[in-house]
Amino acid sequence: MSDTSRSAERDRTSPHDITEAVVGRFDATTDSRLRELMQSLVRHLHAFAIETRLTEEEWLAGIEFLTATGRACTSTRQEFILLSDTLGLSMVVDAVNHDGPSSATESTVRGPFYVPDSPERPMGSSIADQSGSGDPVLVSGTVRDTSGQVIQGAIVDVWQNASSGAYAVQDPTQPAENLRGRFRTGPDGRFSFWAVRPTDYAIPEDGPVGAMLRAANRHPWRAAHLHLIVSAPDHVAVTTHFFDGESRRLDSDTVFGVKPSLICHFVPHHPSEAGSPDGADGPWFTLQRDVVLARLTP
Amino acid sequence: MSDTSRSAERDRTSPHDITEAVVGRFDATTDSRLRELMQSLVRHLHAFAIETRLTEEEWLAGIEFLTATGRACTSTRQEFILLSDTLGLSMVVDAVNHDGPSSATESTVRGPFYVPDSPERPMGSSIADQSGSGDPVLVSGTVRDTSGQVIQGAIVDVWQNASSGAYAVQDPTQPAENLRGRFRTGPDGRFSFWAVRPTDYAIPEDGPVGAMLRAANRHPWRAAHLHLIVSAPDHVAVTTHFFDGESRRLDSDTVFGVKPSLICHFVPHHPSEAGSPDGADGPWFTLQRDVVLARLTP
Repeated sequence: MSDTSRSAERDRTSPHDITEAVVGRFDATTDSRLRELMQSLVRHLHAFAIETRLTEEEWLAGIEFLTATGRACTSTRQEFILLSDTLGLSMVVDAVNHDGPSSATESTVRGPFYVPDSPERPMGSSIADQSGSGDPVLVSGTVRDTSGQVIQGAIVDVWQNASSGAYAVQDPTQPAENLRGRFRTGPDGRFSFWAVRPTDYAIPEDGPVGAMLRAANRHPWRAAHLHLIVSAPDHVAVTTHFFDGESRRLDSDTVFGVKPSLICHFVPHHPSEAGSPDGADGPWFTLQRDVVLARLTP
Repeated sequence: MSDTSRSAERDRTSPHDITEAVVGRFDATTDSRLRELMQSLVRHLHAFAIETRLTEEEWLAGIEFLTATGRACTSTRQEFILLSDTLGLSMVVDAVNHDGPSSATESTVRGPFYVPDSPERPMGSSIADQSGSGDPVLVSGTVRDTSGQVIQGAIVDVWQNASSGAYAVQDPTQPAENLRGRFRTGPDGRFSFWAVRPTDYAIPEDGPVGAMLRAANRHPWRAAHLHLIVSAPDHVAVTTHFFDGESRRLDSDTVFGVKPSLICHFVPHHPSEAGSPDGADGPWFTLQRDVVLARLTP
């Protein structure tokens, strides 16, 4: 037997040796936060491969999945955010960054359908610019701080899907500003606007994330919700949802966005009841929900 | 204070609750191996974000990095493999899949520059199709099994960079088959061919992986090496390198591919010495190294 093969017997490298070598290589990273992130990432990435004894074929399938996910991204579609959402990473990042006073309204995912600079609309008006967007819902409440004081000048930025399932940003048949708008509270801290009853909808299924969900026997549905970002000077803004308590997917929302405190009751009303929207000849609803913001600590 | 904010106090969701919910969602995955992989991936991905308290800005930077990495992939460039290599993941996958008899030749990364179906060349011939590819090296050895028996009919598939640093697949100025070839062992199990002395080279630096290395104060250099895949019927093939023991980057190879047992000595010779290549008027080298394969266990 040659000298070569004898030396191999002494020096075989273990997976853990490799992890320590890679972590050590990042010791020279001068940006201490980047160093911390890269060393933690390397430890967990390696531990995943070691724990599962990841095969070379599975590794290659992972490389191809990530490559396809990159290819699916466009100016109006972010497949990596969809992947983060469906793996629950987005909600974990939300949780570690929003652990403020427990009496403030809880946050949840922003999701991929937010469009900045929605039109500011008059208090009490409707965000539906197209008839047939869905059953009318009068949404109202008060923006308060955690001590119960009302907040004047808060901005309630709302967006939602139509009863077809689609957001305007996904759907060229809707007016561009349909079902989104901003409202500014007055001295009483109150907000009110007409929305439509949201419906459960499937996230985009025609890319790698859809393939992952199918392979894992998971459905692509989100529980019905309205989106809100509520902000005010000197307060911590909250990105959240008002979920429909009658959705069938409250327990299986595909992005894990549901929190018990965010589930709301849409109160049904008959068309003949006082307060019905102009010209309504079908059911309509009211949703009353306050939003509580934490004060910024200077 | 409203009913809403009181209920929020009771039900705040912890990051660990989210991890358990996501892991639980994959309980329904019928492919048991996919279930195992996804549950381990989710636990480690979440643990990374929790342990580092990943901020929303850092999460978004990660999303943008992955998106850019996907965009950098083409038919001849695989930026995600480069990322896996530079984070040491490729070597971990190699280690967990090649833990056979310790007397067999150790494996290392295949890397992104392998081209299948290299020309079969006559034993003793040169893989350099272009003059000026580098200083000649006569590479020779015997393919054996772990009991010391020589192996007839083994295929030694080799490829390497030119002294310019580039592989033919990266470099249109080189003939397509320059510096690659396959050799088949005879009854004595021996192989020999003329290669060129490999040089250290930088991996592609103009994409997201290059930016990551710069941000982390890491260099992009690989320690000089020849690549080999050695295979034979009824034996476990090995993908490995012969590293140049005089490389300056043996301790800092940017893809962590160096294993002590793979470091070789290139013996220098004077042009006037017997055995020099035809027409050589500069230094030349010999490299003697056996390759040991494990038998396939049926």
